[in-house]
Amino acid sequence: MICYLVKVWSAIGLRVALSAVCVLLWAQVGHAAAPPNIVLIMADDMGYECVSANGSTTYSTPHLDRLAADGMRFRHAHSQPICTPSRVQIMTGIYNERNYIRFGILDPQATTFGHLLRKAGYATCIAGKWQLEGGMQAPDLFGFDEHCLWQLNRRPSRYPNPGLEVNGQQKDYTDGAYGPDIVTDYIVDFIGRHQDQPFFVYYPMILPHWPFEPTPDSEDWDPQAEGLLRGHGELKYFKDMVHYTDKMVGKVVAQLDRLGLRDNTLVIFTADNGTYVKIKSYIGDRAVQGGKGLTTDNGTHVPMIARWPARIRTGQVSNALIDFSDILPTLSEVGGAPVPDRIDGRSFFPVLTGQKDSARDWIYCWYERNGRVNRASQHVRDRQYKRYADGRFFDLIADPTEQANLMVSELSSEQEVAELKLSKALAEVLERSEQTEAVKQERKASKDE
Amino acid sequence: MICYLVKVWSAIGLRVALSAVCVLLWAQVGHAAAPPNIVLIMADDMGYECVSANGSTTYSTPHLDRLAADGMRFRHAHSQPICTPSRVQIMTGIYNERNYIRFGILDPQATTFGHLLRKAGYATCIAGKWQLEGGMQAPDLFGFDEHCLWQLNRRPSRYPNPGLEVNGQQKDYTDGAYGPDIVTDYIVDFIGRHQDQPFFVYYPMILPHWPFEPTPDSEDWDPQAEGLLRGHGELKYFKDMVHYTDKMVGKVVAQLDRLGLRDNTLVIFTADNGTYVKIKSYIGDRAVQGGKGLTTDNGTHVPMIARWPARIRTGQVSNALIDFSDILPTLSEVGGAPVPDRIDGRSFFPVLTGQKDSARDWIYCWYERNGRVNRASQHVRDRQYKRYADGRFFDLIADPTEQANLMVSELSSEQEVAELKLSKALAEVLERSEQTEAVKQERKASKDE
Repeated sequence: MICYLVKVWSAIGLRVALSAVCVLLWAQVGHAAAPPNIVLIMADDMGYECVSANGSTTYSTPHLDRLAADGMRFRHAHSQPICTPSRVQIMTGIYNERNYIRFGILDPQATTFGHLLRKAGYATCIAGKWQLEGGMQAPDLFGFDEHCLWQLNRRPSRYPNPGLEVNGQQKDYTDGAYGPDIVTDYIVDFIGRHQDQPFFVYYPMILPHWPFEPTPDSEDWDPQAEGLLRGHGELKYFKDMVHYTDKMVGKVVAQLDRLGLRDNTLVIFTADNGTYVKIKSYIGDRAVQGGKGLTTDNGTHVPMIARWPARIRTGQVSNALIDFSDILPTLSEVGGAPVPDRIDGRSFFPVLTGQKDSARDWIYCWYERNGRVNRASQHVRDRQYKRYADGRFFDLIADPTEQANLMVSELSSEQEVAELKLSKALAEVLERSEQTEAVKQERKASKDE
Repeated sequence: MICYLVKVWSAIGLRVALSAVCVLLWAQVGHAAAPPNIVLIMADDMGYECVSANGSTTYSTPHLDRLAADGMRFRHAHSQPICTPSRVQIMTGIYNERNYIRFGILDPQATTFGHLLRKAGYATCIAGKWQLEGGMQAPDLFGFDEHCLWQLNRRPSRYPNPGLEVNGQQKDYTDGAYGPDIVTDYIVDFIGRHQDQPFFVYYPMILPHWPFEPTPDSEDWDPQAEGLLRGHGELKYFKDMVHYTDKMVGKVVAQLDRLGLRDNTLVIFTADNGTYVKIKSYIGDRAVQGGKGLTTDNGTHVPMIARWPARIRTGQVSNALIDFSDILPTLSEVGGAPVPDRIDGRSFFPVLTGQKDSARDWIYCWYERNGRVNRASQHVRDRQYKRYADGRFFDLIADPTEQANLMVSELSSEQEVAELKLSKALAEVLERSEQTEAVKQERKASKDE
């Protein structure tokens, strides 16, 4: 909270060496002397309906359920509809409206949470899936000391006998290894090596994204398999892959607990977008069709769980509205790092620590896969209503798949109030937004593709 | 046809004094020596479902039905979703993407069909509703020799005892007159005075737009009524107003026929957008809810009827896809006027004269009421499918109200072909589009409103 105040003071003009002050304050207000460790895990294509703690009756995710029971589970966290938009938003704290260039690229000028936490004294590690260009130096240039990544500069098998880049070295595995295990083991090792200093692990998981292939726990796992390089594979393996996702989270958490880092480590688990469109899952009797790529709830509603025994009370369920841009300012506040000017996210640190119910009452989404400004879908939403920039307005509780556009002339007075709030919020975002020249130029340059 | 060829030659580089040549050609290919008269009538807020020739079972429109029987009825004509967007598109032949500033204004730099036909030797008249700013001189500056207009520089009653501007004079009627009658009578008089020369009448009707009030044919017509200045009035009068709309068309057509101008006058009737959202009408057993303001069919599907006995065979029903930008090049071709460079519309003159089935296989719509580029809805459609720029894709035959967004991963092969065609068309429009500096600056200037 004091750190939070410092941020406010800074915003009104005090120039302070923030990270030093914050470390000092952490100690003064009764934290462990060291700032907390941070482990941010993000599954790949795994909607809200895939976690049994969220009510899923199709999958069993005991490790995630345990994590939720030991911390806070969010009912209203929203990513972007697909991969890169979510990744650049989570890493920069900025809406896609001004940080997005095109699919598969992170703006080379971007400031990421890796930069911020490294500068604040953290040992930083990224392991999992890259797919953001920039070459072998990219992880370091974006703020990560160490890496173990798939698709850093090539696209081999990601699952059985994968090809990975580990701290600048291409490695091709041929001994029946499974990509997600190698990456998770790398993280386990990293944590072991850095247990005596604050560390930040960002784990953008490889799982459970297609191609859907047997995992080592599947009946027909083949340690000689070469791995599918294209296509979606067999839908029936998706379930095994969700279970393996959960198992990998359990492996990381077990290492924290084994090393006595449980109390002072913030673990956040989420996912980058909704489930693949051909996957149907159930929450109780309710079928949820995967919505990856869509701006509906099934495309953006993702699991989010946070555990941090030193600060988060156990067994919490939060109704706070969370946007992916909120992660960076939250981690900055947790780690005592100054937040960059002109980001869009809002820290939900006060939600985690029980001081506030919510950091926002609306979130904004700008989405166009290829970055074409004049084709983008934009909306502002709260927990119940969604207002698109083109005027469409939906009641997401009555109509979660957005079948019935509510006509402004037909609204109830409650709906009118909501519509007015969201319209104003949208106007506010658009007013404030100002694309950086770098992004504009990249967009221009990528137009010819 | 020869005129059409001349246009093609011109496009490939021949510099010809087109209007002179065309008048000559009209004579050579057997036209009446004089170019045809043109009467373009556009109702205000009257969707496709309001005309009995289109199958309406709610209204009876005998004059329009007669006009259709004597000429060509279009089944697939589309306006923009509201008033100004349609008006500026019909008057300029340019998509709103680059001709739209904001609601209620016509770009002062615009070249209209008034300019073109006046230059080609036509006597030009506009009568009905203005609502496009520019002051008392505007009708002349936009190419019209004479005018009788409501809302040219003020907004008094439009129906009973109205206030109008007639050739630069404000006139306030207090003798129980009905606005639509005054305007129609003005047109009847104009035609009488110009029967011996080519004339162009543009009649953007006042009817049947709200406020819904009794017409002189309603049981409770009150010649002392002051007219509603705001609000929607009573829905029950809408039917009377549609009937009066039809009656006014009949009055204009009767004058043409009476003066022997029937054969060589092209009359086009259409409407500027769908019906007001609270009006439910029927085509047979099928209810059609008004969709004004929406980009669905109920917002853009409008009646279109063309009669020109000298060139259009009677009793035709056309499936040609017509966009509002197509009117200007069509009238230009009919009137032997050169078409400006860089318009978006395509002449459907060859459709009218039976040489072609269609001038286009898709149409494009850019729509944002207040001209805010970053909130615009855009789509490309053909007769069956609609593809929005944000990726939504609908089968309009199976799903005319756009309830079920078809997912690209789930398309049939026929749908895939359609989706590809429309995506390419959209890319083509966006590639070609280039906003004029004037429009850009006006947009910027109007941002502060």
